[in-house]
Amino acid sequence: MAVKRPTMADIARRAGVSKVAVSYALNDQPGVSEATRASIKSIAQELGWRPNSAARALTGGRAQAVGLIVRRPARTLGVEPFFMEFISGVEAVLAEHAYALMLQMVADQAQEIEVCRRWWGERRVDGVFLMDLQTEDARVGAVRDIAMPAVAIGPPEVAGGLPAVWSDDGESVHEIVRYLAALGHRRIARIAGPAELAHTAVRDAALAEACREAGIPAATVVHTDYTGDEGARAARALLIAPVRPTALVFDNDIMAVAALSVAQELGLSIPADLSVVAWDESPLTQVVRPTLSAVTRDIPAYGARSATALLSLIRGEDVASVRDGYAHFVPRGSTAPPPPEPGPR
Amino acid sequence: MAVKRPTMADIARRAGVSKVAVSYALNDQPGVSEATRASIKSIAQELGWRPNSAARALTGGRAQAVGLIVRRPARTLGVEPFFMEFISGVEAVLAEHAYALMLQMVADQAQEIEVCRRWWGERRVDGVFLMDLQTEDARVGAVRDIAMPAVAIGPPEVAGGLPAVWSDDGESVHEIVRYLAALGHRRIARIAGPAELAHTAVRDAALAEACREAGIPAATVVHTDYTGDEGARAARALLIAPVRPTALVFDNDIMAVAALSVAQELGLSIPADLSVVAWDESPLTQVVRPTLSAVTRDIPAYGARSATALLSLIRGEDVASVRDGYAHFVPRGSTAPPPPEPGPR
Repeated sequence: MAVKRPTMADIARRAGVSKVAVSYALNDQPGVSEATRASIKSIAQELGWRPNSAARALTGGRAQAVGLIVRRPARTLGVEPFFMEFISGVEAVLAEHAYALMLQMVADQAQEIEVCRRWWGERRVDGVFLMDLQTEDARVGAVRDIAMPAVAIGPPEVAGGLPAVWSDDGESVHEIVRYLAALGHRRIARIAGPAELAHTAVRDAALAEACREAGIPAATVVHTDYTGDEGARAARALLIAPVRPTALVFDNDIMAVAALSVAQELGLSIPADLSVVAWDESPLTQVVRPTLSAVTRDIPAYGARSATALLSLIRGEDVASVRDGYAHFVPRGSTAPPPPEPGPR
Repeated sequence: MAVKRPTMADIARRAGVSKVAVSYALNDQPGVSEATRASIKSIAQELGWRPNSAARALTGGRAQAVGLIVRRPARTLGVEPFFMEFISGVEAVLAEHAYALMLQMVADQAQEIEVCRRWWGERRVDGVFLMDLQTEDARVGAVRDIAMPAVAIGPPEVAGGLPAVWSDDGESVHEIVRYLAALGHRRIARIAGPAELAHTAVRDAALAEACREAGIPAATVVHTDYTGDEGARAARALLIAPVRPTALVFDNDIMAVAALSVAQELGLSIPADLSVVAWDESPLTQVVRPTLSAVTRDIPAYGARSATALLSLIRGEDVASVRDGYAHFVPRGSTAPPPPEPGPR
């Protein structure tokens, strides 16, 4: 297959001028008449000529691309709207600056660090987003070691001095617990994401504090891998226990949807017998019945802020951490006062 | 922020040899002793040196990246597992060949063509996937005009000579209709994707044919934008009509989930009063109750085949279209014989 892109030589031949004249004209340098410059530019456009990103990367040192690496099982990614919404916000900002997005899925953190090193060493990207920050995150040290511009998506406490873009999940947890306690709930359980994620730890700590403040017993927390299967299993175990919770809080949307089915299996009516709260309102939480009460925020805007921070960093500017708005609780059809004690079993 | 990547000069300095010697050693050319070569390579590895992709792209003409452009609203993308599963299959193959994936979301086809031209002109990618092939698809001519390697994801009839990777959706439609007709259904309606997508047209044509072959009335078809909202609206309109269908077939999973809620609103029991079939079994279709009967296939494998075809094309090999296995019908909890006539209203 012929791989032929128009070169300055092609333009020179067509315009009947020297390659040097073409270079002057296209780089807006003096040395050619305005009429010649206009004619050369018009021929360049007609031929579909573009400055070569490889040549530019060699001279200017910029790849004009940033990287995003995802370390979640594809089966979870598919259903959780978070990543695609985040990416759509990132791309809106990148497009304005003619930056491209390099995407890679990996199985573990070692692989992710290897991809960062390779991308940076090969000048494929000018910077990277560190998604799903962990409490002990080896990526932070790794990108600092190679002086690769990076924005951490997660709490600044674990970002090791990298600029962090984060949302205070603790605030959202407090809002949920205050609401449920006001309705009269005293037995809350939370079906959480992986314990090693920094934002899971933030939610865990806030939940303990919020229950104390509300004067209700400490909530049970079960950590899962975010899949509907694990969410359903955890919900089932909690709901068949001798004393069951009257409210379940989930760390994503697909697990909350799975819990609706578990409640149905067990003959529990939502919200009369059991309240359910999902994290991140999504099209999914609104097409099921009852619709799910959830905490909600503008995820594309979160992605856009992250991209703005990374591009500033790449330009060599000082970038402070950005605290995004926290997710607010929106009551829908899945929350109500608890059933009268003792609960119907 | 200091942006400093190790260069051949750094390695030369550290090794106490000339830059030329470093270049010979790292490019496996003669001119240095084996001991020096080993020492230089060990220092290069220690410093984290990598061949510069920009330099390689200039000399070898390869970007070592391929592009995937998505033209769907982010809110749909987020919930539909198809794209992420497809991408995970693509990446598995790219990783083996040290290829990167460039991802871009666009609003319309003109923008997509512009991105293709820019990527190709700037040598950012060596080839591209054309997703969601349309019946009249301007992208096909556009990539041929610039001789950009491209694999069309969709039926070869509309791929204009580009290698196509496709799955015969017509076979799946026939399988669904045969199954529903065997259960006794005579009034089937399909809530479809956008009419301009080539695979929607294939399903439309197959549906008419399959109903004829089964000796049942032609199915009603309503085209939507794939969102749960439009799916629910279309389902509601069909179910409140004077004569309602006894089986609804959906072109994706989120619309089928939304239809469960619509049926519940209207007091229709699934599957006793209404059968529901989803397209592409996903975690979503299995966490709802009843679980959804669906056609199912291995989407990551489909992505992997597409990537293999594109890499072959980039290497300059002749690439024939690849017909992937079609999606097979898997009955779950949402299909049963229709209610006795006249239907309960």
